[in-house]
Amino acid sequence: MKFELTILGCGSAIPTLRHGSTSQILEHHSQLYLIDCGEGAQLQMRKYKIRFLKINHIFISHNHGDHCLGLPGFLSSLHLLGRTRGLDIFCQSGLREAVEYQLKISHSRLRYPIDWHILNPEEKELIYENKNIEVHSFPLNHRVPCCGFRFSEKEKLRNIKPDVIQKYNIPIPRIRQIKAGSDYKLDDGTTIENKDLTYEPEPPLSYAFCSDTAYDLRTANYVRNVDLLYHESTFLDEDTKRAEDTYHSTATHAAQVAKQANAGKLILGHYSARYRNEELFEEEAKKIFDRVQIGAEGLVVKVGSNKYSAL
Amino acid sequence: MKFELTILGCGSAIPTLRHGSTSQILEHHSQLYLIDCGEGAQLQMRKYKIRFLKINHIFISHNHGDHCLGLPGFLSSLHLLGRTRGLDIFCQSGLREAVEYQLKISHSRLRYPIDWHILNPEEKELIYENKNIEVHSFPLNHRVPCCGFRFSEKEKLRNIKPDVIQKYNIPIPRIRQIKAGSDYKLDDGTTIENKDLTYEPEPPLSYAFCSDTAYDLRTANYVRNVDLLYHESTFLDEDTKRAEDTYHSTATHAAQVAKQANAGKLILGHYSARYRNEELFEEEAKKIFDRVQIGAEGLVVKVGSNKYSAL
Repeated sequence: MKFELTILGCGSAIPTLRHGSTSQILEHHSQLYLIDCGEGAQLQMRKYKIRFLKINHIFISHNHGDHCLGLPGFLSSLHLLGRTRGLDIFCQSGLREAVEYQLKISHSRLRYPIDWHILNPEEKELIYENKNIEVHSFPLNHRVPCCGFRFSEKEKLRNIKPDVIQKYNIPIPRIRQIKAGSDYKLDDGTTIENKDLTYEPEPPLSYAFCSDTAYDLRTANYVRNVDLLYHESTFLDEDTKRAEDTYHSTATHAAQVAKQANAGKLILGHYSARYRNEELFEEEAKKIFDRVQIGAEGLVVKVGSNKYSAL
Repeated sequence: MKFELTILGCGSAIPTLRHGSTSQILEHHSQLYLIDCGEGAQLQMRKYKIRFLKINHIFISHNHGDHCLGLPGFLSSLHLLGRTRGLDIFCQSGLREAVEYQLKISHSRLRYPIDWHILNPEEKELIYENKNIEVHSFPLNHRVPCCGFRFSEKEKLRNIKPDVIQKYNIPIPRIRQIKAGSDYKLDDGTTIENKDLTYEPEPPLSYAFCSDTAYDLRTANYVRNVDLLYHESTFLDEDTKRAEDTYHSTATHAAQVAKQANAGKLILGHYSARYRNEELFEEEAKKIFDRVQIGAEGLVVKVGSNKYSAL
């Protein structure tokens, strides 16, 4: 089951040629989730061959332009590409009206329905689930209402031991029940216990996205034991005061949250345009938390693995 | 006096890796005019080393996203770069409110004033002038209210003949008057006629921008004798019906307008994403009008010259 993050953009508010605005694609079990959609996100999707029409759910952390200004253009593109299937958008209050006003002045009427879900920036909430995954939003500490998102796999089915189906002549319709934990009764009345038929499933994995936030260890509670954590690191230590003033984090802050949360791996991003060398972010973070990787456009990271590759 | 067009983007509604959304920079006498501002325009400005803070006037032809969705992000960037000087924006009704709503939901307050000028999409109007140039908007024939823009140099001062200043001992304060057409009276009462002191100035040049429009020969009246004409050519002849249905033009249409207007040179652009070979646009247009060039990102064209270079 594929569970993979692709970074489309990991710059901050002022655009540069080095980094695009914040946007990510999370792929899980053939579903593509779009997380934040800064200006130019759709061009990055083109570049990394993301299929627009496979995206059915969009999660926008907050209303700052570098996280949402790509949304109207992307929604228009879906319309022009012939989408008719409904789309779910999870966002802060106000964004829906901004998008709808933009569509109105361009005399555009999308030919697909949008189901808008307004986030609660005050508390952790389950905002979406399907049979494989659940998504929670949780509060971040920024200048405007802002949420992080945690994508958590549900418990997976147990794995059938390789020989038992043949050995006990188990009919196919029963296999799913056994994977779900049932024992199996033979024709002679003997019960084979589930533990003798199956072994433990893969542990469920999770990814958490912390877009823009001041250093706040409460965040660690929301992302406890997450396998992969993206946490913004707009600044380096030398600009800690500026990070505090602007409700952003340093690489050290991000590492402290990852350590406190016992995260499997930390991805950094949202670098201020003032810096030219992202390796300094990694260096600073590694003093606190070793399993860190600098985010970059086109980076693909498997959730639950330390393997990664650049597109 | 520099008078030069830089194409930032010349694609149409669906973004591709080949072409960006419509946006151009016109430089005249050290002033930078931004014409249309599709999504990603500010990144193109970065790429082509356009200095954001030198732009004081923005002209937006209409409210379709591929011509205006880059505006909120660009305005925010100006703020973040410390702009305090006022900015003039010329646009259709509604765009101001869309931009202001976007700024409001992001809790942003720009630290520079914007003077919004709402275009009249029904008639030609003088919308801006300074001592060197005047700008007219004129109606285009599109699905939504849409204007073209014509940037016309004012009459230039006459050129002083190289030897006369010394010959007649003309004081510096009088030179501008003579350049403006005055005769010069010597101390002995003799009048030297202006025609003996000066020669003809360079002819005033002009550039016209026709963003999105159905084929409409009325356009030729508005761009009569223009030195450089940008006219959209979304489609090729084979898709003429589609051009008509969507109020767009073909390369042939653009060439017909250029020919009818007696334009000095025609630049094509706004290519539909369906085509892969822009040379076909040039081929079709050349059957009607010879002085044609295919627009491309980074193309720089001097107004009034057939010389050009790619950045």
